[in-house]
Amino acid sequence: MLAAMAANTKRSFDLSAYVQRVTKSVDAGLDKFLPSTSTKPATIHKAMRYSLFAGGKRMRPALLLAAADACGGKWNDALPLACAVECIHTYSLIHDDLPAMDDDDFRRGNPTNHKVFGEGIAILAGDALLTEAFALAAKAKGWPRYSHKQIVAEIALAAGSLQLIAGQVADLEGEGKKTSVDQLRYIHERKTSALLCASARLGGMSANCNAAQLKALTSFGYHVGLAFQVIDDILDVTKTSEQLGKTAGKDIAAQKATYPSIVGLEKSHKIAADLTARAFASLKPFKGKARALEALAEFLLKRQN
Amino acid sequence: MLAAMAANTKRSFDLSAYVQRVTKSVDAGLDKFLPSTSTKPATIHKAMRYSLFAGGKRMRPALLLAAADACGGKWNDALPLACAVECIHTYSLIHDDLPAMDDDDFRRGNPTNHKVFGEGIAILAGDALLTEAFALAAKAKGWPRYSHKQIVAEIALAAGSLQLIAGQVADLEGEGKKTSVDQLRYIHERKTSALLCASARLGGMSANCNAAQLKALTSFGYHVGLAFQVIDDILDVTKTSEQLGKTAGKDIAAQKATYPSIVGLEKSHKIAADLTARAFASLKPFKGKARALEALAEFLLKRQN
Repeated sequence: MLAAMAANTKRSFDLSAYVQRVTKSVDAGLDKFLPSTSTKPATIHKAMRYSLFAGGKRMRPALLLAAADACGGKWNDALPLACAVECIHTYSLIHDDLPAMDDDDFRRGNPTNHKVFGEGIAILAGDALLTEAFALAAKAKGWPRYSHKQIVAEIALAAGSLQLIAGQVADLEGEGKKTSVDQLRYIHERKTSALLCASARLGGMSANCNAAQLKALTSFGYHVGLAFQVIDDILDVTKTSEQLGKTAGKDIAAQKATYPSIVGLEKSHKIAADLTARAFASLKPFKGKARALEALAEFLLKRQN
Repeated sequence: MLAAMAANTKRSFDLSAYVQRVTKSVDAGLDKFLPSTSTKPATIHKAMRYSLFAGGKRMRPALLLAAADACGGKWNDALPLACAVECIHTYSLIHDDLPAMDDDDFRRGNPTNHKVFGEGIAILAGDALLTEAFALAAKAKGWPRYSHKQIVAEIALAAGSLQLIAGQVADLEGEGKKTSVDQLRYIHERKTSALLCASARLGGMSANCNAAQLKALTSFGYHVGLAFQVIDDILDVTKTSEQLGKTAGKDIAAQKATYPSIVGLEKSHKIAADLTARAFASLKPFKGKARALEALAEFLLKRQN
């Protein structure tokens, strides 16, 4: 969990307690908003909840709620959106793990969805979580400056064929081929940054942020997202499966291009540090009020799994 | 195509011309709203358009636009929603055809999406079309009596784990098992009626319909949807693959429960006729102004493929 990992981060801001609050709120929100495992047909709701409650780090909801905090918002107004981005993230993992995609048997130390429920149900559970994300956005009561129209458009853009899905397609098509650092950035921007960036923006929007704040959150989310993915690439080659809680070295096994494989480990670390510095610089307009976002960004750069 | 088939329907209302207008509008809408095949990554947009423009009957958009007509609406206000329901329908077909589901090689006489683009891209093309449906709902300018919040909730409910996906799950789980007529109705209500019912309702909502009209459209969509599925079951056992433009007898091959297999052919015909009569009765509040809906319902009951 992010909470336990964050305990090692030394900062005046108590990130560990913050992330625990996030996890508690998001878990309660998901449990409240989504159909129970006894709702008919039980199989699909069990499969959806199996992956939703499989120890995810809740990184996207954390960014979303921290962005809401930076803009003086209330978590109650942001929570349906925090749950929505977690549904999108979880759906994308379920589908990515399928045999026709990354063919992964383990995720966060547990068997992947299709290993437990079979491929057919896993595909449908992903479909249902994607649909649920929009149901959640529609469920939220609304926000003074931003309409449901804008919020739904924001989620659909980040999750759609120009962003999240584009990243997965480029990733699939790039396997075993020589990839330039520009192509790799294209993949990472879409596969990871897009939803993290949307999470930060949605948090601001839920808090009725102004245009300058939205711009700052956009830049912050983009850079944190890219940094996060570069670090993911680094960890995949430097850590064991046990340390990661998922299959290590799978990028190499799948002949996937990564930052370390293209520019080397040392330069990859520098790129990650540079991206994080840019993320921090983006937060200047908040004049110290974005402490949770700062703490999250610093933690994400120092993480070991 | 529905247009060519409708030419055989004898009615004072020119359904053939009407359906041609629907097809032209919906095709133009989809072409305008969705990314072109040259938009990067080209593969996913080619895969999405391959199935979207594979000769679908546009039945859901036709019901949606005809419902808008019955309520005095304008097609321009309804078109993004008509395209959205077609995206949902197409996504569900792509995923249903996958080897992990119905494992179908042909659809409307053409190779299925995964046979052309591979399973990974087919899964992602389905995901992208589902996401696009919500992007389209968010793109629509809005309607006086109904908010984007309500419209998005309507689509998410019909497509989600309690309706469309529930039907597919029950269908998957029922294969090879003894099924009662009640269970079969449960499947058909969700797999087919839910989206047809939502289409009729969304058409009304786009035309700013009142509560009585919405209730009438709900009943109409529900009964037409069930009738349509009963007829689908009948055609699967009485027609050849060539006549259907898709694999005939696949329900029997998959040991799927159907109306003919449970209650026999004759009773199935009676059930379909009864459901259609109920659909017609639902339209009474429109006092003859729902001519396109009436013509569509009559045609759908008489269709031979």
